[in-house]
Amino acid sequence: MADWKSLAQEKRDANAQKIPPLWRLPSSLTSSLTSSSTTNVLSIPLTCGVLSDHEITITSAYDATELVKLLATGELTSLEVTTAFCKRAAIAQQCVNCLTEIFFEEAMERAKECDEFLKREGKVMGPLHGLPISLKDSFNVKGVASTIGYISFLSHPPKAANGALIDLLFRAGAVFYVKTNLPQTMMTADSDNNVFGRTLNPHNLSLTAGGSTGGEGALLAMRGSVLGICTDVAGSARIPAVCNGLSSFKPTAGRIPFAGNTPPGRLGSPSAVLPGIGPMGHSVRDFELFLRTVIDAQPWTVDGHVLNVPWRRVEAPAVKKGLRFGLIRGHPKRPLHPPVARILHSACMALKSAGHEIVLLDDRIPDLYESAILAWKYFLLDPQKTAVKHVNASGEPWVPSMATSSFTELAGWEASLDELFGMNMQRAKVVNGYHNLIVGEKLDAVIMPGYQATAVPHDIYGMPLYTVLQNLLNYPAGILPFLKAEKKLDEPFFKKDVVYEPAYNAETFEGLPGTVQIMGKPMEDEELVEILMVIEAILGKVS
Amino acid sequence: MADWKSLAQEKRDANAQKIPPLWRLPSSLTSSLTSSSTTNVLSIPLTCGVLSDHEITITSAYDATELVKLLATGELTSLEVTTAFCKRAAIAQQCVNCLTEIFFEEAMERAKECDEFLKREGKVMGPLHGLPISLKDSFNVKGVASTIGYISFLSHPPKAANGALIDLLFRAGAVFYVKTNLPQTMMTADSDNNVFGRTLNPHNLSLTAGGSTGGEGALLAMRGSVLGICTDVAGSARIPAVCNGLSSFKPTAGRIPFAGNTPPGRLGSPSAVLPGIGPMGHSVRDFELFLRTVIDAQPWTVDGHVLNVPWRRVEAPAVKKGLRFGLIRGHPKRPLHPPVARILHSACMALKSAGHEIVLLDDRIPDLYESAILAWKYFLLDPQKTAVKHVNASGEPWVPSMATSSFTELAGWEASLDELFGMNMQRAKVVNGYHNLIVGEKLDAVIMPGYQATAVPHDIYGMPLYTVLQNLLNYPAGILPFLKAEKKLDEPFFKKDVVYEPAYNAETFEGLPGTVQIMGKPMEDEELVEILMVIEAILGKVS
Repeated sequence: MADWKSLAQEKRDANAQKIPPLWRLPSSLTSSLTSSSTTNVLSIPLTCGVLSDHEITITSAYDATELVKLLATGELTSLEVTTAFCKRAAIAQQCVNCLTEIFFEEAMERAKECDEFLKREGKVMGPLHGLPISLKDSFNVKGVASTIGYISFLSHPPKAANGALIDLLFRAGAVFYVKTNLPQTMMTADSDNNVFGRTLNPHNLSLTAGGSTGGEGALLAMRGSVLGICTDVAGSARIPAVCNGLSSFKPTAGRIPFAGNTPPGRLGSPSAVLPGIGPMGHSVRDFELFLRTVIDAQPWTVDGHVLNVPWRRVEAPAVKKGLRFGLIRGHPKRPLHPPVARILHSACMALKSAGHEIVLLDDRIPDLYESAILAWKYFLLDPQKTAVKHVNASGEPWVPSMATSSFTELAGWEASLDELFGMNMQRAKVVNGYHNLIVGEKLDAVIMPGYQATAVPHDIYGMPLYTVLQNLLNYPAGILPFLKAEKKLDEPFFKKDVVYEPAYNAETFEGLPGTVQIMGKPMEDEELVEILMVIEAILGKVS
Repeated sequence: MADWKSLAQEKRDANAQKIPPLWRLPSSLTSSLTSSSTTNVLSIPLTCGVLSDHEITITSAYDATELVKLLATGELTSLEVTTAFCKRAAIAQQCVNCLTEIFFEEAMERAKECDEFLKREGKVMGPLHGLPISLKDSFNVKGVASTIGYISFLSHPPKAANGALIDLLFRAGAVFYVKTNLPQTMMTADSDNNVFGRTLNPHNLSLTAGGSTGGEGALLAMRGSVLGICTDVAGSARIPAVCNGLSSFKPTAGRIPFAGNTPPGRLGSPSAVLPGIGPMGHSVRDFELFLRTVIDAQPWTVDGHVLNVPWRRVEAPAVKKGLRFGLIRGHPKRPLHPPVARILHSACMALKSAGHEIVLLDDRIPDLYESAILAWKYFLLDPQKTAVKHVNASGEPWVPSMATSSFTELAGWEASLDELFGMNMQRAKVVNGYHNLIVGEKLDAVIMPGYQATAVPHDIYGMPLYTVLQNLLNYPAGILPFLKAEKKLDEPFFKKDVVYEPAYNAETFEGLPGTVQIMGKPMEDEELVEILMVIEAILGKVS
């Protein structure tokens, strides 16, 4: 058996070959693009000469909602849109190492099929007709591998069938062209593994792109994709949005089909903390398009474990005079970096100015840190430690970020069936705490940070207190980009008497995109999407 | 500390005192009403002289839907309706021992409040204005005990608050007047415990009234209630409907709020087999009234663990030309008694004649017996064996039916966290099996028995294969009454080469009511209610 390094190198070499020679960047450029460089590579797709002006427009100027309109009317063909995104994804890959599987040729064939269908039938295949969509590596695509970054999975044959969600999207007209990078075991926030290596943040290569859907985050920021599909059990759809300045949405668990993916650990967990599958991208209306398309397609028929609940058409709360937002400003153990505190403050000011109300919840919620520890216990339930076995099976080492991806409080902790009953009661108490606040205060949603910082240097992201909460509660949540770290403006928000973790240094973070997180009510994914659109419009007016 | 027998006697004596002297039956009559008598007591309320003709009409002639109409228009007052049901419940109690808590005086006061509200405000309190509703003992009512048949719970103070569901029903205008009997631990099908004793079947006192909501079953059969509320984790809302010839409905878990009840075991179980709360009564439209009323009242606001999903208004499939029903005719280890086989056959013939299709599933479903064993494992997860502790706390003995209420295959079986992962995977396989059949065959519902027999003698009901399945799957299901055991007609369905369990003897079961069970699709409670109404109408035309 070959050693793990040569197996990985073989896979990486094969991947590199899948980028057509004409789309390759000169090594004079790529050789400087390392994880220790602070370079911002966002403009490379525009300047490298691989994309035509038209292709730059296609990939830069539209969101998915606009693209499917242009595709449906025939103003754009799927082939030209797909080609443009394949090219830009290829550039992104060479800059930030965001892809795991590349299947440009199959995508072009599929795009042609879409174009011919439209021409022949005079109608679209479905609501996503001809639209390229990128996928986290864990989604199974027929004929494509799902190694999810385990060396031991390199020997698995290509997948024999599409996952349930992938099939639905395909039938709705989607074009698949790439799968994207993720962390070893999917349980760290650095998308780094021994098969594909580390994904870098396009805003600053020395920073993390987040995880576990970090490949999507970096690809979307590079506009090598217009819409990416993520899983999220502790923030995996939201952390990369935070790190790359994007929008994302984690629905209530069970609304989007989960069947037929490749899981990083053991199936059958009795965990009460459930994964959600959601989109990452550039506009909230794209998320509505995605969620409506999938749920209108009756996903229960292809996954008996999905919640058999229709997508409701709700009245836009935009017409409501005043929404009521709870506000959570963080936990003393993970105080907000000055830019995050300022950006959250600014968002609240903007919402207030637009006639909405803010209710401070800081001292009224169950302890956020304790809630995160509780959530983490659920991730440690498997007595067989299956994810560890997957790593050990090949002799590959742990990636560096694993060292900062556990609670020291849980060192040596072993789950038991008896304790699981207790954990469920503790969880019920946390759920009741938020429930009573939301109902008692008649809140429409809660605004809070997605993380205590913007993107941070590699391997020090730590525990995702602010995103795992919504998985513990099983409440939907979204991330919206807003403003940037600006040293001068941030300074008044600096506190001398707190310990920032990760450490805060204004220079490191200057200019990085900011975000806010909005948490909705369970099963009210429809309402949360509408609320996010209201906020998106308000924040969009603030520069 | 007093011994358990005298504690129980004290409680029973106090209960007896709550029946007003004028409503008491002569001991010359009641002394013959024992668990070994084969008497049918259904006519006693009509002949005993306690109820006026008007009260007999009120309690006999209407379903809940009709009663709330008459109450809303003022044609009947809540006081006269409540009085009539209190009287008839008092008679039922003296015949079949179905009640645990009696609060007639409080009910009358509440009824007067309803009447005064209607008079004063010119409108109803809510959709259940003035309607008496009976409750399984496990539902908490403010100021009333919830001993659920444990001697050790006799020392608990009366409940300080209504359970979430009870509060919702109260706000909708309901009048509570009695709580009803259930089995020790709620995990046998004989409603027998050491506090209140055994509930008898009004069709034949020597037979079981079923369980765990057996008190409701007997009370409803006696028409001492028009609508009863049940819990169901293995058939508890359906087994008593089978035994007493009633209708009942177990919704998808989580649709009706469960918070604030008194559980028989430990809370916090990671079990994948979840309880549903549902109604038992005389018409399917009453179930629609109940479900719509509760879910329209936004139960998520009072129970953060309820599924926050609205009650959809669906088109009656009555207009559909042909519904497709799967048919399950039982498992070789529990063959259907001749009357049950004939009644199921007759129901299918009636559906076919009405233009609906039947698809035989017998050999295509996962093994029913194995599925039931799997479900039972989930009930045995608690390492602390909390229900056993509740029994042992007082020194009370086990009731006789406990001896037949476990799988011999599980003797000595102890749960482990590792096995729980495996159980969840096994469950997923079973769910997928049914899912693929239902989707693949485009079935609207599945028709099957609720039990292999009609009501059977006390303490031999055994394991509820045919009702625990829907809890394992978390599919909604309903029971509809249909025909009766008739020796002559049943004879052709007798099979010489099978072992009936419990034993079949045509004489024992002659004249007992029959039922069929209809299983719907998960979360399609709305559709199942409509389908049940279609079937109810068809079966109603067959005598």
